[in-house]
Amino acid sequence: MQISELSDRSGLTVQTIKFYIREGLLPRGTAAGATRAEYGAGHLERLRLIRALREVGDLPVAAIRRILAAVEDGGAGPHELLGAAQHAIGPHVAVPDDPHWRAAREDVDALVRELGWQVSPHAPARDLLARTFVALRRLGFPITLTDLRPYVRAAADMAEHEVGRVARDGPGTRSVHALLVSTLLYEQVLTALHRLAQEDAASRHFDGN
Amino acid sequence: MQISELSDRSGLTVQTIKFYIREGLLPRGTAAGATRAEYGAGHLERLRLIRALREVGDLPVAAIRRILAAVEDGGAGPHELLGAAQHAIGPHVAVPDDPHWRAAREDVDALVRELGWQVSPHAPARDLLARTFVALRRLGFPITLTDLRPYVRAAADMAEHEVGRVARDGPGTRSVHALLVSTLLYEQVLTALHRLAQEDAASRHFDGN
Repeated sequence: MQISELSDRSGLTVQTIKFYIREGLLPRGTAAGATRAEYGAGHLERLRLIRALREVGDLPVAAIRRILAAVEDGGAGPHELLGAAQHAIGPHVAVPDDPHWRAAREDVDALVRELGWQVSPHAPARDLLARTFVALRRLGFPITLTDLRPYVRAAADMAEHEVGRVARDGPGTRSVHALLVSTLLYEQVLTALHRLAQEDAASRHFDGN
Repeated sequence: MQISELSDRSGLTVQTIKFYIREGLLPRGTAAGATRAEYGAGHLERLRLIRALREVGDLPVAAIRRILAAVEDGGAGPHELLGAAQHAIGPHVAVPDDPHWRAAREDVDALVRELGWQVSPHAPARDLLARTFVALRRLGFPITLTDLRPYVRAAADMAEHEVGRVARDGPGTRSVHALLVSTLLYEQVLTALHRLAQEDAASRHFDGN
């Protein structure tokens, strides 16, 4: 298809598509004459992924470039790929060199060990979790393992559901997209549902409904 | 206490504290002489909340001002307060006037009705959820009620746990802080745990561990 059709079908302007090509997020089309290029279904799928990462994941172009590079690196299996994509997604929390942070990070590492979870020691989510521990402690709401239990269970259930679905579909670009989508979009699904559920629970507990 | 002690105990610089006073996030101290002001425990608690909202919730000053105004409005019960705080937190998704969006928003409203959840029709989380539906459909992963079930269950369990805890402690500023903390910080706890659990699930499903 030509770039105008690619624009129609992706919902992105020709200008935006050209920007993504210049930024290295989208491969050039195949030359089909002096001024025309031909684009395929792969281009469209890639554009849809970029759009979702941009609009809903709210990720900067540089992070998307790293994610796409991880997806493209054909040598990696789905597990490595997920790790690479998660590393690219970040967020990379700046870790100050202070004893509260070190203690929180040790708590996170102990928790992961205790749960028996197989997770890279460099996973950015470890620092993300440590940051919440520091903030909760500072606010006077130190987190305990009992407090964490419902969240751990929810996280494990969701992850099992998501990865199980991808594993059944077999490997391939589409499965990897599905996993990225799970990570980013379903986290937003959950955030939105959590807020709705909180309002409902508050209504039942406080208004005597 | 004087501003220097407030600074020590909150971990914020005197400059930052003065900025928050100018921005109306923190009440002035009580005058105690021509150039001195006296601050109390309420100031410290407020500063800790602001710091958490800024650093972990990553919220702009204007959103924090709206949240604090909601918390201060003594007339509201915990349910109204939670609604007001959630409204202030946003995010306020810009809703384009197009049929895909309208359909997604109708799906969200139907879901909330079906679940029997008591939620304001203006809750920003409705549009947040609708946005993920639009993005997932566009990516070729339309969401079904079956896909949503584990997320709905996780969200409801967490909300029940959080609101139940606050309800037991009785109303009061601290309970409201606890609920805000739940909304913002525990969502990040869950995001981090979700990513760790995904990596673990991928390791078990794909690497034959």
